[in-house]
Amino acid sequence: MKLATLRNGRRDGRLVVVSRDLARAVGASAIAPTLAAALDDWDALAPALQGLADELEAGRAPGAFAFDATEAMAPLPRCSQFVDGSAFPNHGDIMERAFNLSVKKVEGVPILIQRQSDDFRGPRDDYEFPSEADDADFEGEFAVITGELPMGASADEALARVRLVTIFNDVSMRAHLFREMQLGFGFIQAKPATVFAPVAVTPDELGDAWRDGRVHLDLRVSRDGEPFGHPNGREMTPGFGGLLAHLAYNRRLRAGTIVGSGTVSNANWAEVGSACLAERRALEVLAHGEARTPFLRFGERLRFEVLDAGGQSVFGAIDQRFVPAGG
Amino acid sequence: MKLATLRNGRRDGRLVVVSRDLARAVGASAIAPTLAAALDDWDALAPALQGLADELEAGRAPGAFAFDATEAMAPLPRCSQFVDGSAFPNHGDIMERAFNLSVKKVEGVPILIQRQSDDFRGPRDDYEFPSEADDADFEGEFAVITGELPMGASADEALARVRLVTIFNDVSMRAHLFREMQLGFGFIQAKPATVFAPVAVTPDELGDAWRDGRVHLDLRVSRDGEPFGHPNGREMTPGFGGLLAHLAYNRRLRAGTIVGSGTVSNANWAEVGSACLAERRALEVLAHGEARTPFLRFGERLRFEVLDAGGQSVFGAIDQRFVPAGG
Repeated sequence: MKLATLRNGRRDGRLVVVSRDLARAVGASAIAPTLAAALDDWDALAPALQGLADELEAGRAPGAFAFDATEAMAPLPRCSQFVDGSAFPNHGDIMERAFNLSVKKVEGVPILIQRQSDDFRGPRDDYEFPSEADDADFEGEFAVITGELPMGASADEALARVRLVTIFNDVSMRAHLFREMQLGFGFIQAKPATVFAPVAVTPDELGDAWRDGRVHLDLRVSRDGEPFGHPNGREMTPGFGGLLAHLAYNRRLRAGTIVGSGTVSNANWAEVGSACLAERRALEVLAHGEARTPFLRFGERLRFEVLDAGGQSVFGAIDQRFVPAGG
Repeated sequence: MKLATLRNGRRDGRLVVVSRDLARAVGASAIAPTLAAALDDWDALAPALQGLADELEAGRAPGAFAFDATEAMAPLPRCSQFVDGSAFPNHGDIMERAFNLSVKKVEGVPILIQRQSDDFRGPRDDYEFPSEADDADFEGEFAVITGELPMGASADEALARVRLVTIFNDVSMRAHLFREMQLGFGFIQAKPATVFAPVAVTPDELGDAWRDGRVHLDLRVSRDGEPFGHPNGREMTPGFGGLLAHLAYNRRLRAGTIVGSGTVSNANWAEVGSACLAERRALEVLAHGEARTPFLRFGERLRFEVLDAGGQSVFGAIDQRFVPAGG
């Protein structure tokens, strides 16, 4: 099934079930008022949500209405944990080569970054940021949303608790990134609010494209209407199972934890392009000795979308303008 | 007023108002079911909570009962953002000198660390961790809990939105800390679940001890019944206002954000001791060439408490055993 959260004047919005073609929706508040509430009691509530999804698909859901992504908040407008990975080795390799970085990775230990989860932005909201001098960038990523996970869970146990899959734009302010990385304490000003697709889907909606804890589909990114890149999620290393097991080593994860893949990046970058400006700029440094692609300017528009084998949008599109804060 | 959250079988518990002497409590569910709900609508709900606190103090609150800290969860058992500072320069200086670290600090830029907020532990819960080889440590800290804060808020504006103050034990696994700091992406396995005091208080409860965005009181730490240290919050640099303004540079903060001070540490450490093992061990390295104080063993007990000028416990005590996971 596909789930979304519509604005209702409250911070957590209201839960709706969305049809597979994203054309129709039906309110699910009678089952759970919010997606957070549904995740808290998933085993008890998911069957009723699936039943409603089946009725909607069959054209028999009373009160169904046209789904309007401009009314969507992030599926979880806030949650109690968001951790982002950096699980596409190709991206790290390019960045390290271009900028002579020596990231002190340990073989077999994935990179995870604890992130704020209080203010996720909706897919069509204008994105406010204070200054172009912050070198605004995007990162197209896949994410999973989990149920409860006990301390010490294995990768397989963790994958069994993946409730939903979606995509997001991990907005990044590159002017602050190296300073914060060198300090060693993670990201604050380098990573402001994150933007999510309108819809999160249960893994079964992905069919064969969800396997080994990876999404085997292209993430299509465009900038101001021009295709920018469409790397595939299959090269993720480790997959979401490995990321979750590392995270759960000495903590239990509570329902509604979101874990991101890191910016999607493929070894055949020359063919498929990148999912962030930083990587394209790094490739330009390697090819030409200098970066040529500019960071985001106020007024630019970004779009992120994933199509399935039949050409149907899976999660709906993130499609938004970047604008001055307070403008 | 003083607020606490009691277990009721739900993840967010139920909100109660606690008397100044921590002896009595009264349910506040008729005003707000949870502390998170109270913070979401603070301006509307705080007057009614204060009224209930006044009734409780006057011995006129119907249904009041004895407050039992063993039934307390963390005041916020989970929230949507937790950021920890490292705002006691004395601590950083000692650690850098003892271990020849060169932390790439920028003058005037505070250290903040994004942390998980899905699983805060109660003040008397046994604390499970998987292995003594992880070098378990504690850090005694002050924290503020904020209301909404707009992007670009100043330090003064931020301080005006501080709703509550409390203390916590920032449990730290030192065996993972330097590896994760060197990687540059912040803490994952180095910082498992955090433990909070039973009670959070509005700043007015601190009287003159709350000024300049700092708590001018000693944080008393004991290990297995032996006093370990009692450094004072007054040397915090910057205060909570400065930490919050840095955080709000390019993000808005949503209600219920928790910001920590960093482990409390004073220049007169020889007199007042430390609030974490790592600092005492660093001082031993500087004095004797080697650390002598061992990290935590299974079965050890830690206590954290703050007394006001009259000797009254302000937040109640964190007092808990460290035990093997799954034991």
